[in-house]
Amino acid sequence: MFKRLFEIDPWKVKTRQLDVENKRLQESLTSIGNGYMGMRGNFEEGYSGDHHQGTYIAGVWFPDKTRVGWWKNGYPEYFGKVINATNFIGVDIVINGEKIDLAKTKHRDFYLELDMRNGLLNRQYTVELAGLEAQIRFERYVSVATQELALVKVEVELLKGQGTVELTPKLDGNVTNQDSNYEELFWLEKNRQLGKQPLLTMETVENPFGTPRFSVTTAMKVVTSAEKHSQKETDKYVAETYKYDLSAHETACLEKYVAVVTSRDVLESQQASKAEKLLTKAVQLGWGPLKAEHSQVWQARWEKADVVIEGDDEAQQGMRFNIFQLFSTYYGEDARLNVGPKGFTGEKYGGATYWDTEAYIVPMYLSVAEKEVTEQLLKYRHQQLPGAFHNAKQQGLKGALYPMVTFTGVECHNEWEITFEEIHRNGAIAHAIFNYTSYTGDENYLLHEGIDVLVGISRFWADRVHFSRRKKQYMIHGVTGPNEYENNVNNNWYTNTIATWTLRYTLDGLKKVSKEKLAELKVTESEMTKWQEIIAKMYFPKDEELGIFVQHDTFLDKDLQPVSSLNKEDLPLNQNWSWDKVLRSPFIKQADVLQGLYFLNHKFTTEEKQRNFDFYEPMTVHESSLSACVHSILAAELGMEEKAVELYARTARLDLDNYNNDTEDGLHITSMSGGWLSLVHGFAGMRTLTGKLIFKPFTPKNWQGYSFKVNYQERLLQVKVDHERVKLTLLQGAPLEVNLYGEQITVADEYVRQVK
Amino acid sequence: MFKRLFEIDPWKVKTRQLDVENKRLQESLTSIGNGYMGMRGNFEEGYSGDHHQGTYIAGVWFPDKTRVGWWKNGYPEYFGKVINATNFIGVDIVINGEKIDLAKTKHRDFYLELDMRNGLLNRQYTVELAGLEAQIRFERYVSVATQELALVKVEVELLKGQGTVELTPKLDGNVTNQDSNYEELFWLEKNRQLGKQPLLTMETVENPFGTPRFSVTTAMKVVTSAEKHSQKETDKYVAETYKYDLSAHETACLEKYVAVVTSRDVLESQQASKAEKLLTKAVQLGWGPLKAEHSQVWQARWEKADVVIEGDDEAQQGMRFNIFQLFSTYYGEDARLNVGPKGFTGEKYGGATYWDTEAYIVPMYLSVAEKEVTEQLLKYRHQQLPGAFHNAKQQGLKGALYPMVTFTGVECHNEWEITFEEIHRNGAIAHAIFNYTSYTGDENYLLHEGIDVLVGISRFWADRVHFSRRKKQYMIHGVTGPNEYENNVNNNWYTNTIATWTLRYTLDGLKKVSKEKLAELKVTESEMTKWQEIIAKMYFPKDEELGIFVQHDTFLDKDLQPVSSLNKEDLPLNQNWSWDKVLRSPFIKQADVLQGLYFLNHKFTTEEKQRNFDFYEPMTVHESSLSACVHSILAAELGMEEKAVELYARTARLDLDNYNNDTEDGLHITSMSGGWLSLVHGFAGMRTLTGKLIFKPFTPKNWQGYSFKVNYQERLLQVKVDHERVKLTLLQGAPLEVNLYGEQITVADEYVRQVK
Repeated sequence: MFKRLFEIDPWKVKTRQLDVENKRLQESLTSIGNGYMGMRGNFEEGYSGDHHQGTYIAGVWFPDKTRVGWWKNGYPEYFGKVINATNFIGVDIVINGEKIDLAKTKHRDFYLELDMRNGLLNRQYTVELAGLEAQIRFERYVSVATQELALVKVEVELLKGQGTVELTPKLDGNVTNQDSNYEELFWLEKNRQLGKQPLLTMETVENPFGTPRFSVTTAMKVVTSAEKHSQKETDKYVAETYKYDLSAHETACLEKYVAVVTSRDVLESQQASKAEKLLTKAVQLGWGPLKAEHSQVWQARWEKADVVIEGDDEAQQGMRFNIFQLFSTYYGEDARLNVGPKGFTGEKYGGATYWDTEAYIVPMYLSVAEKEVTEQLLKYRHQQLPGAFHNAKQQGLKGALYPMVTFTGVECHNEWEITFEEIHRNGAIAHAIFNYTSYTGDENYLLHEGIDVLVGISRFWADRVHFSRRKKQYMIHGVTGPNEYENNVNNNWYTNTIATWTLRYTLDGLKKVSKEKLAELKVTESEMTKWQEIIAKMYFPKDEELGIFVQHDTFLDKDLQPVSSLNKEDLPLNQNWSWDKVLRSPFIKQADVLQGLYFLNHKFTTEEKQRNFDFYEPMTVHESSLSACVHSILAAELGMEEKAVELYARTARLDLDNYNNDTEDGLHITSMSGGWLSLVHGFAGMRTLTGKLIFKPFTPKNWQGYSFKVNYQERLLQVKVDHERVKLTLLQGAPLEVNLYGEQITVADEYVRQVK
Repeated sequence: MFKRLFEIDPWKVKTRQLDVENKRLQESLTSIGNGYMGMRGNFEEGYSGDHHQGTYIAGVWFPDKTRVGWWKNGYPEYFGKVINATNFIGVDIVINGEKIDLAKTKHRDFYLELDMRNGLLNRQYTVELAGLEAQIRFERYVSVATQELALVKVEVELLKGQGTVELTPKLDGNVTNQDSNYEELFWLEKNRQLGKQPLLTMETVENPFGTPRFSVTTAMKVVTSAEKHSQKETDKYVAETYKYDLSAHETACLEKYVAVVTSRDVLESQQASKAEKLLTKAVQLGWGPLKAEHSQVWQARWEKADVVIEGDDEAQQGMRFNIFQLFSTYYGEDARLNVGPKGFTGEKYGGATYWDTEAYIVPMYLSVAEKEVTEQLLKYRHQQLPGAFHNAKQQGLKGALYPMVTFTGVECHNEWEITFEEIHRNGAIAHAIFNYTSYTGDENYLLHEGIDVLVGISRFWADRVHFSRRKKQYMIHGVTGPNEYENNVNNNWYTNTIATWTLRYTLDGLKKVSKEKLAELKVTESEMTKWQEIIAKMYFPKDEELGIFVQHDTFLDKDLQPVSSLNKEDLPLNQNWSWDKVLRSPFIKQADVLQGLYFLNHKFTTEEKQRNFDFYEPMTVHESSLSACVHSILAAELGMEEKAVELYARTARLDLDNYNNDTEDGLHITSMSGGWLSLVHGFAGMRTLTGKLIFKPFTPKNWQGYSFKVNYQERLLQVKVDHERVKLTLLQGAPLEVNLYGEQITVADEYVRQVK
C-alpha cells in the first residue's frame, strides 16, 4: 500500500487538493498538538462529508466498560480511553445566508499547509456564490508557550460582489467517541455561560470502577471589528455570532482565543477564573506577539533536534514530520503523562502508553532532549508500580507485570493473548532503565527508584517461568512475542532472553544499592539464588544447523516461505487474510528475535546478527509501525545499505505515505522515533549500550549527506556526515571519548576524518 | 463443588423447600419441554426475588451483533441465539387484595415436584394472610401429544377464613434476554387481542444480516367457574381477570390452555386461526383426557428407553433425569432442529447445535430410538453443507468446515481460538456417519448424502494441513483440541488422528459410491493421491519412553502434576484461576487423547488405552460436562470399576448435584446422554464400531443390577445384568449375533449366562 496526499517539501506538509475520498487521512496528517491538547486537522467551519471530528486533552480519559466475546478470568474490567472532548476550534461561516461547507459549497484554489517549523496549520480557498466570490483563510495553532491556549483566526475577503458575512465562533460539547464500546456518551454538561467570556464546563460521566472523573472548562474570547450580533446556547453548546457587511476587497477578520483548563490542574470551581486570566493576558498580548512566542519555542526545539538531510527531500520531510508529531504529543513537561499510541490524532488502541515508549521513544529522547525528559518517562513507570503488582496478582502471579495498555498502571486491554501473554513488555521497562543508565552514565535513578521496578519485574519472571523436569531447564510457556502474528507460543526466544537479562541486570544492580535500600527491598538470599538458577538453566531455542536463534519452540515446523512468494494483493496480511491463516503462516509482523539483537546489540556477534537477519527479515511483513526501524538499523550495521534505506523510507514516511493503510484512524505516534533511530543508530551507527559512545557512519547513495545533534553524558555533539567526511563537533561540555569506526578518539572541539 | 437441592426419588425431582438463595438453580432443574417449546421452572404467579424468567421456542432465534474485544478477520458477523419468548405461563394471584409473591408473602408447606414419568410439573404451598389461610396448587406441562399446547392449572383452596380471590391469566411479551450483547430488545408486537381468545403476536426485530425473522402467536383460552371480571391490555401484554368469593374449604380452579404457533410452520396471517383451532379442540377434549394423551406418549418413550437401576436411587434418579431432559429437548420430530446446548432451560452458549450432538447424542439415540431419528440429525448437517463451505472460505480454506455454533450452518461463535481453531469438530461430524453406518449396517445414507459431507470435510483437512519440510511430515498447526484449557497448539494428537481417519474413511466410501455419484462429487485422482499421501505422512506426536500419544507438540514440557496436588479451593479452575494460569497448566478440561481412544476404540490395544488413561486422567479436572462419561467408559473397559462408578455419578448427576457450579444458567443438555453412555458403553461394555454387537457387562458393587433396551440393526434387545447373571432378551426382530465376553453367541429369544 502506498498513498501520498501531500506534496514533498522539507518543512511543510501541504496540498492544493481537498481530498474528499481521503478526508480522514488528510485530517490525521494535519493534526497538531502541544503535549497538553491537540486535535485532528478538522475544519473550523465544519464539514458535512465523511470525516472524523476529534479533539483530545492529555490525561483526560474514561474507563469504558470492557467488551469481550467471552469473559476470561483475569480480564481488566474497563478499557481506558482518551476521549473526544469539546470541539473548541469551530467557527461557522455564513455568506449571504449560505453556510460554507466544502462538502457542498462550490470552491476553488484550495490550499492546506502544516508549517512544521513554526507549528502552524493554515488553510485557504475561494468560494463562488451567486454574484459573489470570497477568499477564506484560516490559521490555527495550539500554543507551546502557554499550553492551555488554542488560537484560531478566520479571514473572509470578498473578491467580487458584496454581501453579508456571519461568523459564529462556538464551543460544542456534543461529541461522540468513534471508539466507544457501547455507544455511550462520556460527557455531561456542568456549566455553560455566554456574555463576556462564553464557556462550557463538561465533566466525564460517573463510572463504576472508581477511577477519577475529569472536568474540563473551555472558554473563548473573540477579537474582531464587528459588534456581537447575537448569541445562542443549547445543551452542551454556546456560540456568538458576528455580522459584517462587506464590499469587494473588504475583509472580515476574527481571532478566536480559547483557553482549556482541566481538573487535572485546577479545581472545577476555579476553572472559569483561571481561563479568564489566561484569555485576558493572551488578548492583551495580541495575535502577533502570541504567535511569535509560540514559534520561538518550536524553533528552539528544532535547534536541538533537527536532522538535516541533504539531497533527499522525501526523506527530509518524513524525518521532520515524525519529530514534529512526536514533540506535539510529548515534550516531557508533565510527569503524569506519557506518549499515547495515537497522541491527539485519533482514538484507536486506547490507553496513555504502551511498551513502545521504552522500546522506541526513550532511546531517541535520550539524545534529543535533556536527560530529565527521559527520567520523567522512567518515573512514570515507577509511580505505577502498584498497578503492576495488581496486574500480576490478577493472573495469580508474584511481582510486577507492567500493562500492555494503561492510564494508571492497571491493565486496560481486553484480548487474552495480549493482556495475559504479551509479557515481554516487562523486559522493555527494565531495559529502558539500563539504557538510561548506560547512556547518561548516571546510576542515581537505577539505585534509588529503578531498582524497585527491576526487583518487581524479576519477581514476576521468577514466578512466571516453570521448570520442565523432562528437559531439566526453565521455560516460559504461553506467551506472545513482539510478533503479534503468532500467539500463545512456548519459549519465545526474545521473551526468554529479555527475562533472563532482566534477572541478571537486577542482581547486578542489587550489588550496588545501599544497605538501607537492600533492606527495604526485602530480597532474600534464597530469592537471589533462585534467580541465579533460572539464569543458569534457562532454555533458549536455537538451531545449530541454521545457526539461528529460534523464534519459539515449533517455529521451524512451519511452512517457511519468504514474503516475496506472496501475491501483492495478499498484503497487508492483516487486512486480507483470516486470522487463522495469519497465525499459522511463517510471516512475521515485526522484529522478534531481531528485536533482541537490537536491544542487546552488544551481546551478539556480527555473524549471529547476519544469520538471524538473513533468516527472519525475508519472512517479515513489517505490518507493525514498529518494525521497519529495527530492521533498518540492523541492515545498516550489517552493511546492507539498500535494505536499510528502503526500510528507512518505510518508517520515516509510514504515515505520510500511508504504508499500512490505516493512518485515517490517526498517526502512529509511538513509532515516530523510527526515522530518527534508523538514521542515527542505523546510518550513523551510534551505540551507547556499553557506556561508550560509538559511531560507524555512512551516507546512503542517493543522499548528499546528513547531520544531527546528540546529548550524551552532559555534552552536546554535532555529527555531520557526507560521502567523504565525518565531522564531529563538540558544541557543549567537556572533551569526549568517542569510538569512531572502531578507533578511540577524543573530541575536544572538532574532529574530521574520511568515511570508511 | 456439590449442591443438591432436590430429594432422591427414582421417578421424581422434588423438594419441600423454596430455596431463595438458589432460585435460578431450582428453576433450571425443574425445566420442562416438548421438543417444540419449553421453559424454566418459573412460577406462574410471578416472583420478585432473584430469578431468571425464560421461555424458549425451538428454531426461533435472533442474530445478535457480534461482540468482541478486537475484531479478527474471518469472525462471524453475528452470534445466533435462541431468544426468550412471550411468557405464557403467567397467572397472577391476588387474595383479599394482596398479590401472592413467594419472595414476600408468608407461606408454609411448600412442595415442588417434577414428575418425570408423566412429564408434569406440580407445585403447592399454603399462604397465611390476615385472618385467612389458603392452599395454592399448580400443575403445568407442555404437551408431547400436541406440540403447540402448553397447559397450566391453578387451584386456590381456602383453608381458613373467607375472601376474594382474583386470578389473572396473561400473555406477556415484555421479556429480555439475559444474554443480549448490547442489551437490545429482540421482539416487537405485531398484534394483540382480547375477547374470546386473547392473543399476542410478536415478531423478531429487523436484523442487518439477512437471516429470517420469526413471528410467534401465543393465544389462550381459560376454563373456570367464574365469569370474566375484567381484562387489560398494554404494550406486548394481554390479560383477563377472574374473581371468586370463597368461604373456607371452597376452591377456585382455573385451567389455562395456551397454543403457541410460529412462522416456522404457519403464515403469520393464519396463526390466530390455527391457534383457535388447537385451543377449541383442546378445551373440547378437556383437562383430563388431554393430560392422559400427554402422559401416554411419555410412557411410550420410557417403555423404549428406560434404564432400571436396582439398589441405587441416586444413580437411578440421575439416569432418568438426563433421559427426561434430553427427550424434552429433542425427539427427532423436526429435521430442522437439533439438540441445543441449553435446550429450553437457559440462554448461555447460543446456537442450535455443537459437535456434542455427533459426539455424544448420536451414539445414544442410535440405541434408544428408531434409526430415522439419528438419520435426521445427520441430514441436518447435510442440509447445512453450504454453510460449512462458507465457513471454510471465510478462513481462506477449501472444503467444508462445520461450525462450532450455528443455526444455519454458518458459524456464529466469536472467540478466534474456538471459531478458527477448534476444528476437530469436523471429525465428529464425519464420525457420526461412520457410527450410524456401522450401527445400523445400512450404507444407504453414507453412499448418497454422507459422502457429500465426507468429501467436503476431507477437502478441508487436505487444505488445512501443511508439509513441514524439516520433518518431512504433514502437520496441523494452530488448533484447539477437545481440551479447551489449552489452545492454539500444534499437532493435537486427537485432531491429527481424527483428520487422518476422516480422509481414510472418505477414500473407503468413494470406492463404494456409484459412478454417477462419483462424477457429481468431482473428486480427482490427484486429489485422492494427495489424501493418501497425507494419510501416509501424517505426524502423530508420541512418546516412546512413556508409551503414550502426546496431547500436542510441547505438552510434555509442562510442569506436569496430578489434580490431587491442587488445593480444593482452586477447583473448579475455570472459576478460580486466571485464564493465563489455566492455559499454562497441565490440567485437562475434558477427554482429549482419550476422546480419540473412545471414538476409535477398536483401533487401539488395551495396553495403549491403559497407559494413556493412567497418564492423562489424573491431570483431568472434568470441568466440561462432556468429560466424565468418556472417562467412565474407558475406566470400565480397563476394569477400573471404582473410577468408572465415580465418573458415572458425576455425569449422571452433573446438574442435579451442580458439580460444575453453573447449572443456574441452565442444564447441560448435550451431555445428558453421558449417564446412559457410561452405563451402556461403560458398565455393560457395549461396542458397535466394528459392525458387530459386543458386550462385556459388570455390575457396580453398590448396585444390585440394571437393565436397558437397545435398538440394533432392526432388533430390539433387552439387556439385564446383576452380580450373577447376564440376560439378553430379543424383544423384536430376527435372531442376532452377539459377542459376549469375547464369545460369539446367537440370541434368538433369551440368552442367560454367568457374569465374567
